[in-house]
Amino acid sequence: MTPNPVVVEVSRGDRVESFHRGAVVVVDTRGVILHKIGDAERPIYPRSAVKPLQALPLVASGAADRLGLSLAEIAIACGSHAGTAHHLSVVDGMLRKAGSTPSQLECGTHRPFHEASSRDLDARGMPATPLHNNCSGKHAGFLCVARALDVDPTGYTEPDHPVMRDVAAALAATTRASHDAGNRGTDGCSVPTFAIPLSAVATGFARLGTGTDLSDSLAHAAARIREAVTAHPEMVAGSGRFDTLVNAAGGGAILCKCGAEGTGAAALPTLGLGLAVKIDDGASRAVEVVMATILGSLLRGTSEVVTVLDGLADQTLQNWRGTVIGRVQAAHHVGRTL
Amino acid sequence: MTPNPVVVEVSRGDRVESFHRGAVVVVDTRGVILHKIGDAERPIYPRSAVKPLQALPLVASGAADRLGLSLAEIAIACGSHAGTAHHLSVVDGMLRKAGSTPSQLECGTHRPFHEASSRDLDARGMPATPLHNNCSGKHAGFLCVARALDVDPTGYTEPDHPVMRDVAAALAATTRASHDAGNRGTDGCSVPTFAIPLSAVATGFARLGTGTDLSDSLAHAAARIREAVTAHPEMVAGSGRFDTLVNAAGGGAILCKCGAEGTGAAALPTLGLGLAVKIDDGASRAVEVVMATILGSLLRGTSEVVTVLDGLADQTLQNWRGTVIGRVQAAHHVGRTL
Repeated sequence: MTPNPVVVEVSRGDRVESFHRGAVVVVDTRGVILHKIGDAERPIYPRSAVKPLQALPLVASGAADRLGLSLAEIAIACGSHAGTAHHLSVVDGMLRKAGSTPSQLECGTHRPFHEASSRDLDARGMPATPLHNNCSGKHAGFLCVARALDVDPTGYTEPDHPVMRDVAAALAATTRASHDAGNRGTDGCSVPTFAIPLSAVATGFARLGTGTDLSDSLAHAAARIREAVTAHPEMVAGSGRFDTLVNAAGGGAILCKCGAEGTGAAALPTLGLGLAVKIDDGASRAVEVVMATILGSLLRGTSEVVTVLDGLADQTLQNWRGTVIGRVQAAHHVGRTL
Repeated sequence: MTPNPVVVEVSRGDRVESFHRGAVVVVDTRGVILHKIGDAERPIYPRSAVKPLQALPLVASGAADRLGLSLAEIAIACGSHAGTAHHLSVVDGMLRKAGSTPSQLECGTHRPFHEASSRDLDARGMPATPLHNNCSGKHAGFLCVARALDVDPTGYTEPDHPVMRDVAAALAATTRASHDAGNRGTDGCSVPTFAIPLSAVATGFARLGTGTDLSDSLAHAAARIREAVTAHPEMVAGSGRFDTLVNAAGGGAILCKCGAEGTGAAALPTLGLGLAVKIDDGASRAVEVVMATILGSLLRGTSEVVTVLDGLADQTLQNWRGTVIGRVQAAHHVGRTL
């Protein structure tokens, strides 16, 4: 296996201290590769980067219309939220519309990503609940789909449950990659995650951004998801976090989502492109810098979002006294050939 | 630059999801390389992995004897502690012996690594202080050295301060690598960190473990540091953390210390060996697994510590519901050729 190139360098003083290898691919809506770094065909688990694709059945099943979901509710179904009170109230509203309760969430529990919310729990002596799980919006969406399909929601995270079958079908339809027992792992929130080529992830996002080559139902759902994420970027991550900053700045020109283990994907609807990134070692700091660098290169000259992206593409490192002692930046070749 | 080999694989289901490349080197007390993986000569910042070497002047300067430091106090000067009440009381005691106050610590402030201690601060509405910084024991040691040298402690973190000059001299004497402005960066706690070959880090630890080829003063200091870490492994990290588990289990057969950005080093006094590891991408999860694997291979058949090391060398990954969904393990070749 040929090593992927170095895509991010972490420097301290004038030396590179650590570095990250990975793969990057940009495709058009037919899946034709326009730009790539490293191996774009090696199967990778896209993890939460494909949440916007996993959310397609929420609209396509009719659940969003039948249950009267708001755009904020659709957006949080695409998100890895920070567990703030605002996020929790949106998820709770979805559960009520689905006739469900937090105890039916099968995502498991972790403390809120949002530090102040986490400390507030401690100050009140309260434990974290499944509502705080960053995936609870996605899971509330799955419970809405179960309601629309009129099926027992119990075990909705199992691969053979009608909800998960719909989700796998939407992933397969957009990415054109097989999603079955042969490439299935289990994600942190207990739903299946399927190992597919990075180019297929990018193709799924190119189609999410344009509706090209999708059924009318999925194309309609893709448009609603773009509308939702553009209107409510704060539901996709949270204040100051990468996906929220980029989607907010993008104003519809970007639909971006990162996931665990160094995964990231984006649709560029106005350009008809899809982007996907996998950092070999799984580092979040690296995928964010690469995504910002590539998105900035693709949109340069076309959008004011570039100022925000340039800031995210060059992160300074400070020591505990606040002195700048290093940087995290894309390697010189990344984004230069676009 | 030839890529270093993959040394750790992170699997999900039956697939490798992410992987870490890096370098490993084992040397004898003369610095002769007995085993290596990857590039052992590329300069790396050893960061906190060399804290036990940075602590040598605390004993060699006479400070430990003159101020009546306990073994626990010498051990925490070698440590990256968790910020528990116990750790803070030990650091506070050192400061009092040095005639210093917490406000003289130049390490900066971060929240305690120990979660319950961090939550306890919130419950009491208290901010973190420089005492909570994982490096405050090392810095309290530096203030003790300043006292013993009878110099103004202000600016003790600056490269030209007499304390830092003593520390750089001890690093140079043990590793036989140059430590000057040409290879100097700034560590997270504001003291210099010097980029040196990984083999030099390993050599420094082989000598720390045996005293070989050191001055009488440094050899004496090395013996006291080994005694301190063996007697008080909980001061080197904290309950349940890697360095504490390994040093406790080692019972004097290992003196191990990991640092930021995927660095780790160990002395094996009974075997007369030194070990150093650098993970290219800086991942902590990877350096711990590699250190445990190599130490287990080196000590197999000689010590009961191997049971602990084998457990640390094979980490299971659970999802938020507690289901095992993957593992973190050394690549097959690591440790096989020892």
